[in-house]
Amino acid sequence: MSEGIPSARIDAQFAFLTEADRLKSVLRCTTLCDGSWRENSGEHSWHIALYALILADQAAPGVSIDRVIRMLLIHDLVEIDAGDAPIHANHDHAALALAEAAAAIRIFGLLPPDQAGVLRALWEEFEAAETPDAVFAKSLDRVQPVVANLESGGGTWPACNVTRAQLETRVGDKVRRGAPALWAALGQRLDLWFGAQRHG
Amino acid sequence: MSEGIPSARIDAQFAFLTEADRLKSVLRCTTLCDGSWRENSGEHSWHIALYALILADQAAPGVSIDRVIRMLLIHDLVEIDAGDAPIHANHDHAALALAEAAAAIRIFGLLPPDQAGVLRALWEEFEAAETPDAVFAKSLDRVQPVVANLESGGGTWPACNVTRAQLETRVGDKVRRGAPALWAALGQRLDLWFGAQRHG
Repeated sequence: MSEGIPSARIDAQFAFLTEADRLKSVLRCTTLCDGSWRENSGEHSWHIALYALILADQAAPGVSIDRVIRMLLIHDLVEIDAGDAPIHANHDHAALALAEAAAAIRIFGLLPPDQAGVLRALWEEFEAAETPDAVFAKSLDRVQPVVANLESGGGTWPACNVTRAQLETRVGDKVRRGAPALWAALGQRLDLWFGAQRHG
Repeated sequence: MSEGIPSARIDAQFAFLTEADRLKSVLRCTTLCDGSWRENSGEHSWHIALYALILADQAAPGVSIDRVIRMLLIHDLVEIDAGDAPIHANHDHAALALAEAAAAIRIFGLLPPDQAGVLRALWEEFEAAETPDAVFAKSLDRVQPVVANLESGGGTWPACNVTRAQLETRVGDKVRRGAPALWAALGQRLDLWFGAQRHG
């Protein structure tokens, strides 16, 4: 029942999209908001793309939300090879950066060359966190696990012995760069949660 | 450590985004490509948004890929209340449409009114499958489970006794409306898989 000749271009695109499916099996430390199980990087990528769509009015002037969404859809694909690196754990940052760069070459390299180049450049822009689009995207990537932890009764914070001050520097500084009002809005809930831990 | 007053607008946006988290617990019939477990509607939504980004060159002239991506990010949120309705099962379509419409009112209604209206209209446009953006979005929503089934050795087809001819009418007709070359590219693989079942 085939019509026409399957093109090599579509075959390469399907090969990439099938490889991308593996991101649904990369587990993060953060759980779902109901604490039932660990979130995977595929559903996380959907959720923060939705964050970008909904919280667009928090972006700095000149940020392209559609570009931020594209960035967030692909931002974690390198984890298929390099794994997820939780923010509250210790990492060899140089080794991780090398592993992720190699992953980007392999995974985006499954695409037709024109698309491989565009998407690798978009991922590198996200990683560099310098352009307004990337700064806002990074803010959302940081803020979503905080919301999940608050919803699930602390999430990964107790196990990782995270303090309010550590959260402020490891996460807050990055969120504030791109979306200061979001961090402010979470501040009261964070103060309450960490305060209850201290006095509990 | 809070700065400023948390706005009611941001609170409503976070309430919506937290409710959206529940889509990660809505299981579909389709499995991941490796057959390991059932896909959830959150990770499915990410995957087909990525399909739109990668397969943009298959869209008809005039389709806005960024609008298609936005549509796909929100297209399944009603399943939080109404559940997933597998294509190869029997449904009371009128009852399902009512349940989904009520879900859209409740779930998008968590947002500030201006955003609730925009996103509900976008979801209704997807459901109606009449505009070029919606037709392309629907095609991708139909084609991704076919790829997953082919990758996982047939997936849901054997259990649902799906024939090649049924697939052609239930799925192929819809995919061809928005992305004919994609269906053609899959045709040979489908012929091979269903042929092997018949003669196996």
